[in-house]
Amino acid sequence: MVRLSGKVIDIEYRGLLLNRDDARTIGVLDGDRVEVVNEEKKAAAQAFVTTTATMLPQGTAGVYQVTNRKLQLDGGEAIEVRAVGRPASIDFIKKKMDGGKLSMEETQSIVREIVDNTLSPGEISAYIVGTYINGLDMDEIEYLTRSTVSTGEQLSFASHPIVDKHSIGGVPGNKITLLVVPIIMAAGLKCPKTSSRAITGAGGTADLMEALAPVAFTASELQTMTEKAGGAIVWGGATNIAPADDKIILYEYPLKIDPHGQMLASVMAKKFAVGADLVVIDIPVGRDAKVTSIEDGRKLARDFMELGDRLGMKVECALTYGETPIGRSLGVNLEVAEALTILKGGTAPDSLIQKSAAIAGIALEMAGKVQAGAGTEAALSLLSSGKADLMMQKIIEIQGGDPGVKPEDLPPGNHSFTVNAPETGYVVEMNNRALITIARAAGAPHDHGAGLSFHKKQGQHVKKGEPIFTIYADRSWRLQKALEEGRRLMPIAVEGMLIDRVPGNRWRSPMH
Amino acid sequence: MVRLSGKVIDIEYRGLLLNRDDARTIGVLDGDRVEVVNEEKKAAAQAFVTTTATMLPQGTAGVYQVTNRKLQLDGGEAIEVRAVGRPASIDFIKKKMDGGKLSMEETQSIVREIVDNTLSPGEISAYIVGTYINGLDMDEIEYLTRSTVSTGEQLSFASHPIVDKHSIGGVPGNKITLLVVPIIMAAGLKCPKTSSRAITGAGGTADLMEALAPVAFTASELQTMTEKAGGAIVWGGATNIAPADDKIILYEYPLKIDPHGQMLASVMAKKFAVGADLVVIDIPVGRDAKVTSIEDGRKLARDFMELGDRLGMKVECALTYGETPIGRSLGVNLEVAEALTILKGGTAPDSLIQKSAAIAGIALEMAGKVQAGAGTEAALSLLSSGKADLMMQKIIEIQGGDPGVKPEDLPPGNHSFTVNAPETGYVVEMNNRALITIARAAGAPHDHGAGLSFHKKQGQHVKKGEPIFTIYADRSWRLQKALEEGRRLMPIAVEGMLIDRVPGNRWRSPMH
Repeated sequence: MVRLSGKVIDIEYRGLLLNRDDARTIGVLDGDRVEVVNEEKKAAAQAFVTTTATMLPQGTAGVYQVTNRKLQLDGGEAIEVRAVGRPASIDFIKKKMDGGKLSMEETQSIVREIVDNTLSPGEISAYIVGTYINGLDMDEIEYLTRSTVSTGEQLSFASHPIVDKHSIGGVPGNKITLLVVPIIMAAGLKCPKTSSRAITGAGGTADLMEALAPVAFTASELQTMTEKAGGAIVWGGATNIAPADDKIILYEYPLKIDPHGQMLASVMAKKFAVGADLVVIDIPVGRDAKVTSIEDGRKLARDFMELGDRLGMKVECALTYGETPIGRSLGVNLEVAEALTILKGGTAPDSLIQKSAAIAGIALEMAGKVQAGAGTEAALSLLSSGKADLMMQKIIEIQGGDPGVKPEDLPPGNHSFTVNAPETGYVVEMNNRALITIARAAGAPHDHGAGLSFHKKQGQHVKKGEPIFTIYADRSWRLQKALEEGRRLMPIAVEGMLIDRVPGNRWRSPMH
Repeated sequence: MVRLSGKVIDIEYRGLLLNRDDARTIGVLDGDRVEVVNEEKKAAAQAFVTTTATMLPQGTAGVYQVTNRKLQLDGGEAIEVRAVGRPASIDFIKKKMDGGKLSMEETQSIVREIVDNTLSPGEISAYIVGTYINGLDMDEIEYLTRSTVSTGEQLSFASHPIVDKHSIGGVPGNKITLLVVPIIMAAGLKCPKTSSRAITGAGGTADLMEALAPVAFTASELQTMTEKAGGAIVWGGATNIAPADDKIILYEYPLKIDPHGQMLASVMAKKFAVGADLVVIDIPVGRDAKVTSIEDGRKLARDFMELGDRLGMKVECALTYGETPIGRSLGVNLEVAEALTILKGGTAPDSLIQKSAAIAGIALEMAGKVQAGAGTEAALSLLSSGKADLMMQKIIEIQGGDPGVKPEDLPPGNHSFTVNAPETGYVVEMNNRALITIARAAGAPHDHGAGLSFHKKQGQHVKKGEPIFTIYADRSWRLQKALEEGRRLMPIAVEGMLIDRVPGNRWRSPMH
């Protein structure tokens, strides 16, 4: 315990800034945990150790605003700072690194200390890498799911069933939630949907929905809206549902890993926390998707179903085609307009309509609204009758948007460039990752008008000079950036029907 | 690329503080890497994302001082901020996580990006945990050693041989460097010794040496001092020798791991970087030491020797007794005074003298100064003749200390408490970890007078009421803290000679 003078730092961040000499006296290194005490008030904080002492002479500690909210210093008061003992859960992380099996209590301790900011970034990463390398068995996955649920908010509905859907991602343009949720609601089922924003994609469902209405709501607001309107589509990040998962994802994404057990727990914790009874899971299968083979998709489906059983939820999974973007657009306004057009009677693109109806249809069958095998037809009928559109209007209205919004209210950006076919032939390849990179370079998801529109899709024939896709941007320099990426990445290949030739002698179109 | 107004934050820290909305526009999350550009000047920085906007309205970014040294903003200028691509080495980290073998180039890339602050804490931890779980083979250890050397400073001497020693740690009170280096120098050999400060111990060699003279020197100062005086004992942290290792250790210590390959590379990189030809490695073996069995010690020794071969260094190892503290003291002044007393002719504690002479003797034999088997005797003679003491005076003088310093200039703290034997019997156990905890509670290594002095050691007979050890502290509240820890931990056990009894019926002294 060392006594220092507290200096409030007018920055909305968390932590305690220490002079190097004071840090040595306390016995902490940069990044270590400390406990700070101001009379009766205490705060746990991460220590940042400064290398020189211009602003912080020895004996003075800087307290950032978020941390000071707990300490309520005016500045100049004496505070006490002590090194905090090693968090208990580090031993459990170590156990997993050493190949051990974690108990419910050990898992709960780790997840609690992730949520509490007790564990440092290096320690959280050690946990994730330990589970990535050594794996989690189904018991451990169940414990992780339950711990992720119990350390966040939960919904509890008086009437049932509650239906939920999830797409495990990896395929661009997957705006089906904007169709699936209203269809499910139109069948009289409740659907409190939480969605994510894009981290590396061109737009998550929450980014899309935000073009229509606010999406930041608390868990209890989500519950109330669902009770009143039958459903809602909100951003999960604001609900404090499964907050551990939000933190874990931050460490997984730079490493480009999504350990099997973590992924199962992440999805199912969110479903369990909103009180879902029936869950449909969309598993896109494709080269660049998270699941790359039908066999892996089936195995993952079985694991989802087993985990659902353990948690008392009924789960069905659909393996879907994930080789190319869903529908004919990428980017916020383009995708939202595409979905609204279908809700208002549009009949294209057929692939998007069929996929949405298939997923929603599974939910209708699970809920007993229609007989087995009749779900897709029922879903298509709820779509074409305009009943799903009415539900979407209810969602938009209850979330504070304009229910009268039309597709033309969501225009693409003013700056555009259309890429034409350099040869006559078939579209043999659409590179999902390259397409996302170009859409992001154009400004998606931040710039709502930015994105891509596809005139041809994989397998279609195109004549030399016909348009293949158009890039849209809200700002001209963004369009230039996207064009540069397009020239570099060549995201779409047009070739003759002959695809396989002797290696080393393969003919490539001038786009390559 | 987003344009923001730069606001200088008068805090000696590194990084860029972003408003949440700006962070979204740029496409970065809290902790992500960004590049910041002010006209011609650029800086790589970690982004800290604030949750509210009182001080940082949208459009304004806060630049900390360390980062601003590269940007040289006065405040208010327009800066450009962009997300930095994923560092190349993350793919190699992932490869190791997936059980792959890293090449020289891949290892070099990881180590370079650790040193450059390009990798985030979570990513560095992922690398360490990956190597911990999947291991490194001898090729990979060699690559790691060479990469650790080449990303830091190196010494290069005109005359040879250069001798170095290293103790791999885990045993408290191991002040032998203060005796071994002067003995080696007294034999006419050069010894540029870098040492560490205590992280979790009661005092590293650098902490001890600092009681006699400054220890913070650059690599080239270490070289010059060694050329002039024959040797020096400096703090490695200031030399920028093997800086990657300093960073890696920060992630290992909370996890309490020291992966085999990392440890070999860490030790040997420091020896290689100072230009050592001959290296003696002290491997303490004991319950609480890093090596817990003779067999493991032998295996480790073989690995050190093989790695030495690959790097062109001759290595010999000594397995030493690491069950109890070395000598009769713990803590800065107590340990330094103990070493000085021996240099100036003292004959106790014999165990410390014998260990130091044995380690130094190996070096003398390796250098061909004496015949095989005659090293220890020669070392003892250099010690008792006062020649080693003259060398220690040269070290102290060239580092800027007072060469006339005497043991009594290093007094223990004014506040003390002596623990007496509760029963007559034998000291059957000294718990190293508990002893270190008590010494640290008393203020070691920060308070130079703080520490422990042992009146009896393991295996010795003690009568009821006779003193076993004394706790010293510079401040009375520290002494109280240490006493509380002492009562809690009971670090020394006195029992009858009968140690093994049927489990469940073991007699314990009242100290337990």
